[in-house]
Order: sequence, then C-alpha cells, then structure tokens
Amino acid sequence: MNYSIIRYILCRVLEFAALFLLLPCLIALIYREKAGFAFLAVIIGCFIIGEIGKQKKPKSNVFYAREGFVTVSLAWVVLSVVGALPFYLSGEIPNYVDALYETISGLTTTGASVLSDVECLSKSIQFWRLFTHWIGGMGVLVLIMAVLPLSGGYHMHLMRAESPGPSVGKLVPKVQTTAKILYSIYIAITLLQIVLLKIAGMSLYDSVVLSFSTMGTGGFGVLNTSAGSYSVSVQNILTVFMILGGMNFNVYYLLVVARKPKEAFKYEEARVYLLMLFGAAALITWNIRGDYGSLAMAFKDAIFQVASIGSTTGFSTTDFDKWPEFSKAILFIVMPIGACAGSTGGGFKVSRVMILLQDMKKELLRVIHPQIVKRPHLDGRAVDDDTVSSIHSYLIIYLVIVLVSFLLLSVDKYDFTTNFSAVFANLNNTGPGFHAVGPTCNYGGYSVLSKFVLMFDMLTGRLELLPMLVLFAPNTWKRY
Amino acid sequence: MNYSIIRYILCRVLEFAALFLLLPCLIALIYREKAGFAFLAVIIGCFIIGEIGKQKKPKSNVFYAREGFVTVSLAWVVLSVVGALPFYLSGEIPNYVDALYETISGLTTTGASVLSDVECLSKSIQFWRLFTHWIGGMGVLVLIMAVLPLSGGYHMHLMRAESPGPSVGKLVPKVQTTAKILYSIYIAITLLQIVLLKIAGMSLYDSVVLSFSTMGTGGFGVLNTSAGSYSVSVQNILTVFMILGGMNFNVYYLLVVARKPKEAFKYEEARVYLLMLFGAAALITWNIRGDYGSLAMAFKDAIFQVASIGSTTGFSTTDFDKWPEFSKAILFIVMPIGACAGSTGGGFKVSRVMILLQDMKKELLRVIHPQIVKRPHLDGRAVDDDTVSSIHSYLIIYLVIVLVSFLLLSVDKYDFTTNFSAVFANLNNTGPGFHAVGPTCNYGGYSVLSKFVLMFDMLTGRLELLPMLVLFAPNTWKRY
Repeated sequence: MNYSIIRYILCRVLEFAALFLLLPCLIALIYREKAGFAFLAVIIGCFIIGEIGKQKKPKSNVFYAREGFVTVSLAWVVLSVVGALPFYLSGEIPNYVDALYETISGLTTTGASVLSDVECLSKSIQFWRLFTHWIGGMGVLVLIMAVLPLSGGYHMHLMRAESPGPSVGKLVPKVQTTAKILYSIYIAITLLQIVLLKIAGMSLYDSVVLSFSTMGTGGFGVLNTSAGSYSVSVQNILTVFMILGGMNFNVYYLLVVARKPKEAFKYEEARVYLLMLFGAAALITWNIRGDYGSLAMAFKDAIFQVASIGSTTGFSTTDFDKWPEFSKAILFIVMPIGACAGSTGGGFKVSRVMILLQDMKKELLRVIHPQIVKRPHLDGRAVDDDTVSSIHSYLIIYLVIVLVSFLLLSVDKYDFTTNFSAVFANLNNTGPGFHAVGPTCNYGGYSVLSKFVLMFDMLTGRLELLPMLVLFAPNTWKRY
Repeated sequence: MNYSIIRYILCRVLEFAALFLLLPCLIALIYREKAGFAFLAVIIGCFIIGEIGKQKKPKSNVFYAREGFVTVSLAWVVLSVVGALPFYLSGEIPNYVDALYETISGLTTTGASVLSDVECLSKSIQFWRLFTHWIGGMGVLVLIMAVLPLSGGYHMHLMRAESPGPSVGKLVPKVQTTAKILYSIYIAITLLQIVLLKIAGMSLYDSVVLSFSTMGTGGFGVLNTSAGSYSVSVQNILTVFMILGGMNFNVYYLLVVARKPKEAFKYEEARVYLLMLFGAAALITWNIRGDYGSLAMAFKDAIFQVASIGSTTGFSTTDFDKWPEFSKAILFIVMPIGACAGSTGGGFKVSRVMILLQDMKKELLRVIHPQIVKRPHLDGRAVDDDTVSSIHSYLIIYLVIVLVSFLLLSVDKYDFTTNFSAVFANLNNTGPGFHAVGPTCNYGGYSVLSKFVLMFDMLTGRLELLPMLVLFAPNTWKRY
C-alpha cells in the first residue's frame, strides 16, 4: 500500500470539501443565518488540514487498483465525517450519529432521512443537505480529476472505483476529458431542470435545491410531504428528470457531444431501463386504477413512483406503502435493479441484470444444445468472460451483504418487511422502504448499531461493493 | 427429442406408482377403510396403462441430457397427477387442485399443507400422504434404476436430473450400483428411526409414517400440532433424524460401506452443515432464553426448529412465528441454504453456498493481488470452472424464480412477509413460512393461481431448477 499518495489525495479532497461548503456558507450569509458560523469553522478546518497535509509530495507514484479502491472509499468516509459537522455544530441535528447518517444518505444519493421534520431546517443547512446529493451523484473524485491536472497514471483506477457499472465507460480515450464531459452534461441538465421548475412557478431557492436532489437521484426534499403537495406540472418535471438522472450518461454524450443520435437511441441499457419503468408503471396503473378518478391520474402517480424507485431517487407523491401488495411487489423488484450504469443512480444496474439474464438463458440452452456456446452481448458486442465473472461475484457479495445487514437489523425492534426493505432501500441508495420506513416515516427510530449498518450499506452500495469491503481485508494494508 | 424412450420410461413409472399405492391399499384393508377402493381403482388404472404403453419398445436409444431432464420432470408430474387421485376419489380432499398441491408437496418433501385438520384423515390416506415424502426423498427414478436392469447408457443423465447437488456424486463407478447403495442406506436409517420411535413409546403406525416423513425431510405430520405434543425424547429423535436426512449420503457410504471413517468425518459439506445448524441454534437459544425456564429447554426447541428448517423438513414444536425477529431472521437465512447435496433435503445446498462464498473471496483477493488466481476448493479438490459457472447460473435462475413467483403471489390477498416466505418455503421444499403461512397455519387460503405457482416452485426446487424449466423451452420438443 502506497500510503503517501493516499494521504496526498485525501488532503485534496479536504480542500474540495472546503470549496463545496463555501456555497451553503454563502446562502447563510444571504439569509443571515447563524448556521453560517458552523460552515465557516468547518471550511477553515478543512482548508488548513488540507494545505498542511499536501505540502509533502508523495514519495512514490505506485498506484494499483488496490490504491484506487482504498483512496475512493476513504475519500467518501472523510467527506461524510466532515460534511456531517455543520449539521451537528449548528445544532440543527443535535446527535452526531444522526448527522453522519444524514450526510452519508446525502452523498450516496440515498435520501433516507432520520429527520421527522425537514421544514424546520434553516435555508443554508437545507441547501447543504440537498447539495450533498449533487456532489455524490457524479462523484467527488471524478470532479477532482475533471478540474485538477493530477499527474500520474492512476486516473483509471480512481474512475473505476467511483463510477457505477460493470465496466468503466470511458467516453473518450483520456480519463480526465471523460470526467470533464460528464460534469458538463451533468451541470447542463441540472440547469435545464432549474429553469423548468422556475417556469412552473417554484421559487429560485427551491428550484435549485430540488434540482440538485433530482439529478443526483437523491430524494431529500424541502417539504415534509416529499413531492406530494407540488402541482401536477412540477411532479411531471420531477418524473422526467428522475428518469434522466438514472439514465446512462453515455446516451447524452452520443446525443449531444458526439452527435450520433442513431446510436444513442439504439443504446440497449437505456431502452431496457425505459421499458422496465414504463412496463412497471402500466401494471401499477392497472392495479391502483380503482382508487383514482381517471387512468391518467393513476398513471401520473404510478410513473412518478416507479421513476422515483427505479432511478433510486426516492421522492413520493403518495403513500405507496398503502398501495395493493402487487404494486408494492413491483416497486420491490424495481428497487434492487435500479438505474443504468454510468448514471447518478444506484442499485444493481440494468446492464448487470441484462448480462445475468442472458447468462441464464445460455445455461438453459446448454442443456438442449450442449454444443452451442453463446456469450452475453451488450450493444452488439460480446461481453468478455472477466466482466461476466465479476458480475457473478458482484451478485454473491450483494446477497451476502443483504443477508448479513438484514440479520443485524433484526436485533432491532422492527418487523420483517421494515428491516428487509430498509436494507434494500439503503444498499440500493433508494431511500424510502415499506412499513416503519415507508414514504411517510423515517429511519430515526433505528438504534445506533442499525444506523451504522445502514450507513455501511449506503456507502457500499454507492461505491459498488468492492471498494468498501477492501478496507476490511488485512492484506490491503500491507506496505510494499 | 426421442419421444419413444420417454414414453417407455413414463410407463415404467406408472407401474411403479401402482406398486407404491399397493402399500396404502393394504393399510386400508387392515383398518377396513373404504378409501381402499380409491387406491384399488388407481392401481388398476396405472397398471393397465403402464402395461399397454410399454409393449412397444422404444425405436431408438438416443438419450442426451435433454431427454434426461424431460423424462425426470414428466415422471414427477405424472406421479403427482396420479398420486393425487386417491385423495380426491376417496373424498377426503374433495378439491382436485388441493389434492394435487398436497401430493406435490408430499413428493417434493416440502410438507406444506392445504389442510387445516389432518387428524380427520383415514389411516390409509394418511399413510399415502406421508409415504410420498419417502418416495420423493431419494427419488423415484433412482429407485427404478436400483431395481430394474434398464439397458442403455442413460442412467447418468437420469441421475443427474433427479439427484440434488452441484455435481453428481457417484459413489461407485456404476450408476445403478450407486442407486442400490443409496436406497439401502436410506432404508436402513429409516428402519433405525422406526425402532427408536417405537422404543420411545409411539405406536407402530405412527413410528412408520413419521419416519417416512422425517427421513424424506418432508414435514407432514399426523397431528394438527405437528410435533408439539410429542414427548421430549420423541422430539429429540426427530431432531437427530431430520439432521441425518439432510446430510450428504456420501458420508454414510464412507462410514458404513467403504469403511473410511476418517474421510467421512473430514467431509467438508457435512461439517459446514452441522456448524451452520448448531451455530444458528446457539444464537436462537440465546435470543429466546427469556421465554424458557432453562437454557436446555430453549436449546431443545431451537435445535429442533433449526434442524427442521435447515434440513428443509418443516416440523415444528412451537409457533416459531412468534419468536423475536432476530431468531426468525436466522431461520429465514437458513431456509434457502438448506441441506447438503446428495441428501433428501432441499434448498440451495450447503456445498453450492460454500463454492459461491469461496468465489466471492477470490474476487476480493483479485483487487488486492491481481496476479493471484485462486479456485474454489471442496474436499481438497479444485472445483472445475464448468461447475462454478453452473452454480452461478443456478443462483440467477433461482433468484428469477423467487422474484417472479413472489410477484404472482402478490396478486393474492396476503402481505409481503407471507408471500415472500411462502415462495421460499415452497421453492426450498421446507414447508411452513411466516405470518399467514406460519407453522400453525396452512396454504389453503391461497387462490388456485397461487397454488399452481407454488406447485411449480416445489417441483422446480426439488428437481433443482433446470429440468422443469427445460419443459417450457420450445426447442426442447423438436424431433431429431
């Protein structure tokens, strides 16, 4: 393990944390809130530690996958620990564990809250809460790479550890340029949503923070009713941008930057993702139609909720925990599948599921025609054996984490449905679950142990399992 | 597809069905029950159709994996359809769908019942109900191979399709001898249990039928309280034999026939299986200790229940649905893991889980030491890539069946926990689930559609997924 380079990058992350915090500090200044002092204190602390720490240049540039994984997971842990401080120091979340849970939920774009009343938060704290979604959505190291001219050949390892998907989707040969393009697209779509929400009658502040939450596929809101009390047009805008946030960003690259609309519309993962969302929404519409005046109104809520769960955002317009079991079962199946690779969403990712299903078909065919060997394909290309094998291992690790987390949560006071859906909603970075963690409830009732289990799940889910697990292998920490 | 040979073997199966039914028919004669006529009618029917059908010898001896899978699944379907007739014709289960569910549950050694009162059944019908567990436990085609000198090289394909486990455990080079040894061991242990239960004070009839149910890891009982009202010594005998039924029969072969006790005690799958059961029982004992007078009494119920769920039998001595969530979570995790390969138990099988966990460790190591390639090992031998890849596909197919079944059950009136545990309890051939399908309840309340889904799950689980699925692939049915 090359400790010095990790120390160096983590100090850079602290500097960026200070930069991020400047924004809510500015909001505090505008609204003259005393939370501003909490932000200021953390900014100064981060800046000083970051500056001192990065003075000593790293001794060696050795940087393997191992270093990439460790750097990324530690960066996320550091950012979470630091990001929780303003909540705590301002006194608006008086318990540090709760503040940490809220921050990790924000950064990992989960959107699961421990707060029963979010409307009493000050503007600047609220801004920081929803801004964490936006930072975490595309990834902080991706941002550092896009902005700083880091030398050395370790970009790929960082990108692989932080970007979601079975293989790293480099848009262009250079990783740094890829990072730049991704962030430009991200900013552009976010701006578009802000404008549309403003036109639909929302205040500028609400438009901005809600767009952060939507495009990061986060799910934190500014009202206690989530998205339930917004107008139909605002709800529809949210639906569209939740879907966009969960889409593979390659599609936007092909569409806008590379100008290959034909390829963009043929993109298999995006097509299956949309098919899944609209198919699920159609089934739910049919199932809940009796409770609504018209099919159109039923569909509006159905597609909103499916888009919210499928893109792993977690907004709600209605208490879907009261829907019939069949509709809830559909949401429960859409939840772990999640969004596309290369999106800001979480979950197992549509492309991974596609590859696994093709592999399943292969096994069936092998019985009938033992001589035929058929490989999984994606976008007309055969998926190589290493990727398929990684996805298989991914599934096992995923299931083991689900079962162990579920077992640990069961020590707590809640029932089967609550615990199982809590694990799913946190590991897949969705947010709300069912029963006691349903859309009208929150995670505040869980014990400290359970909260730490769920925090681990959120980080593990966001970083796609391996990076966080590697931290716990003793071999990782051996010096060269 | 070689239709003529499948027809030929299925007719043989009908003859064997007639033979099996002679036993309860005899019981009806002893107890002078009119259900005897129902048995007699079915026996005559099976015998005539079987005799006529097998007159025409098969045109060709071509027999591939495909034929093996189709023959085995059709044999189980035919046996279920025929086996349900006595229940229906005797009027003791007046609904044929219910009778079919009960028969499939019996043959697949699931033990899930649609009957709320099993004590009102006649002796002969009860005998047949529990005898199906014993037939299904070791498999009907394994029995046919053990008894009949079937010519042709297709034994291996039949064995592979009917015997549980990631690879076929041939004890000796000849498949037919293996089948003979397996059935001899099976009969010997069953006889031992009958003797022990008789000594513990049970009637001969009860000892016999309960031993059928235990050694087949079935779970049907003769009392409405399952095993709750038996004496402690009877309960302990049941605990031991449930564990034995779920053990890999290779262990008995090594111990008794091959006389290699050292190898038997070193058998990894059996060791992990026992470790899992006793570890789970210890945790549950600790968790429920407050409700019991002594740790010993708590442990008695804990190990009974863990053995029952782990071996996929399904007896209960107490309403474990009322246990704390942590204990229920443990049972819920033990349930899908299930018993050993090469046992009469169901579930995913301990050895499959062992191989998957090793593969997961490999993926973690690959990040830290990319140059090291480590293969999963079992009993000192490396598991070949084909087997590992099959287990991976097995997991995916398993999950897809779980999710689709769960979705279909959700159309029915029950809640999340009920539906989810029902799918698990049926697909893993365990029997009782939680909530509305808990140990004191039954599956009678499900709709006909749900019952068919669960019947499919039971058969698919018992035959280890592929054989039943192959029936639905159009390519399977193409003539050569």
